[in-house]
Amino acid sequence: MRNIKLTLAYDGTDFSGWQIQPGQPTIQGALTDALEKLTQHRPAIYGAGRTDAGVHAAGQVANFKTESPISAPDFQRALNALLPPSIRVLASQEIAENFHARWHAVAKTYRYRIFRGDVVPPSIWRYVCHYPHPLDFDAMAEAALRFKGEHDFTTFAATTGSEEQDRERSPIRIIYRSEIVRCAQRDSMAPGDEWEYIVRGKSFLRYMVRKMVGTLVEVGRGRLAPKDIPALFALRDGSKSGATMPPQGLCMVEVEHQIPAEPVGHADAFSNSSH
Amino acid sequence: MRNIKLTLAYDGTDFSGWQIQPGQPTIQGALTDALEKLTQHRPAIYGAGRTDAGVHAAGQVANFKTESPISAPDFQRALNALLPPSIRVLASQEIAENFHARWHAVAKTYRYRIFRGDVVPPSIWRYVCHYPHPLDFDAMAEAALRFKGEHDFTTFAATTGSEEQDRERSPIRIIYRSEIVRCAQRDSMAPGDEWEYIVRGKSFLRYMVRKMVGTLVEVGRGRLAPKDIPALFALRDGSKSGATMPPQGLCMVEVEHQIPAEPVGHADAFSNSSH
Repeated sequence: MRNIKLTLAYDGTDFSGWQIQPGQPTIQGALTDALEKLTQHRPAIYGAGRTDAGVHAAGQVANFKTESPISAPDFQRALNALLPPSIRVLASQEIAENFHARWHAVAKTYRYRIFRGDVVPPSIWRYVCHYPHPLDFDAMAEAALRFKGEHDFTTFAATTGSEEQDRERSPIRIIYRSEIVRCAQRDSMAPGDEWEYIVRGKSFLRYMVRKMVGTLVEVGRGRLAPKDIPALFALRDGSKSGATMPPQGLCMVEVEHQIPAEPVGHADAFSNSSH
Repeated sequence: MRNIKLTLAYDGTDFSGWQIQPGQPTIQGALTDALEKLTQHRPAIYGAGRTDAGVHAAGQVANFKTESPISAPDFQRALNALLPPSIRVLASQEIAENFHARWHAVAKTYRYRIFRGDVVPPSIWRYVCHYPHPLDFDAMAEAALRFKGEHDFTTFAATTGSEEQDRERSPIRIIYRSEIVRCAQRDSMAPGDEWEYIVRGKSFLRYMVRKMVGTLVEVGRGRLAPKDIPALFALRDGSKSGATMPPQGLCMVEVEHQIPAEPVGHADAFSNSSH
């Protein structure tokens, strides 16, 4: 079987998230429908991460297996012709048969955009969380650094057990980068109007980034201090973090992969997922 | 009567243009409905320019008269609370009673965005025209300069007479700035992926900017030369320009005003419009 790797960007505003659900507009569903038109079968599409409803992607990665003779570049062109403009295939390549977008992801980077100005420009309202109230940037920047490293993120995960948590069991996660920046001026924006939180980690629990940002906002409001972050980890209580920030500010910007040298079957790949 | 000046930004994608039309979603209609809720009357709203269906604004200017005691900053806040996120009041100020957004506009600036990359990012598809085919940038840049100055723009106006043309009669227009630039890198775009045509003039005929850009594209394709622009002016034939480019690339970015020292009545202002 040929294995095709897709790099995807999407505007999640009008979708009920990545994961296919009957009767709901989803990214995986739209891709599956388009691939069915091209290949006359409904391939399983594996995404590197299952973004929630309203969350965007600038570099989601997915793969699917097919016997179709369509070339990888032709898959890109044909999918972009069939998909709505809110979902784009940025790249398409044939890849080793053992490659799995989810199990072989070694790092994912997310960005959370906070718009600080008084009025959100119409061109970006879908992509930012509007928070025009006072926030202490320096305190938030210091707190963001406290998320780096290997920690038990139970406090920063969805309090209701999700399928993902159940399967992956361990709440231990490794964060490589965690910083908040005043972003460079974008189109029709004054300098300083936007802050971005950038986080890169091996993998993430459900709602984890949005709860981390909600906690940083509490620090910015002076209701928590940067030094409180280690104590929050120790509590291991999902009700003690800041609020889960709204989805529209969140974007999956990059997924990095490393394919093991030895081909692994699906059974092996599955057991890999719990490490 | 108090006179309120509004500076507006909007995403024109889902609107049938500026001008109010029964049963159609329009910018002027949405503003009028919102103002009616706030003031209990339906004020006439004068826009500096009537943008066509699908055309955007980053700096449209409008004014309306009211006896309402609501302050100008409160009008901004209340309108932004009532309007959809695709229409934003960027600024609101009380202004001299004789100010008229249309008659006292001395210059308008439009931008036309052409996306040159292979795949349009989902975050900008509403705001660009996708043209990935080869174009000679230098020839287009040279041709753009030929639009500067005072010319008879009949060739670059809608071939069907519009209300605006009928009223304004003269097809003579003055262009102060006309240039095409490779725009600075925006979010999630490779350098050179976007070209922008920027034009600043005293006023414009209907479809004029979109027909000028369509003509520049013909130059970029080598089907016209920069030196053909003066000959096209001389033809005074609306069927001889390049195509009318699609609306979504166009944005009214700025309107400049000069209020006459002597208050003028509406009748005077009307006669001003035909010079």
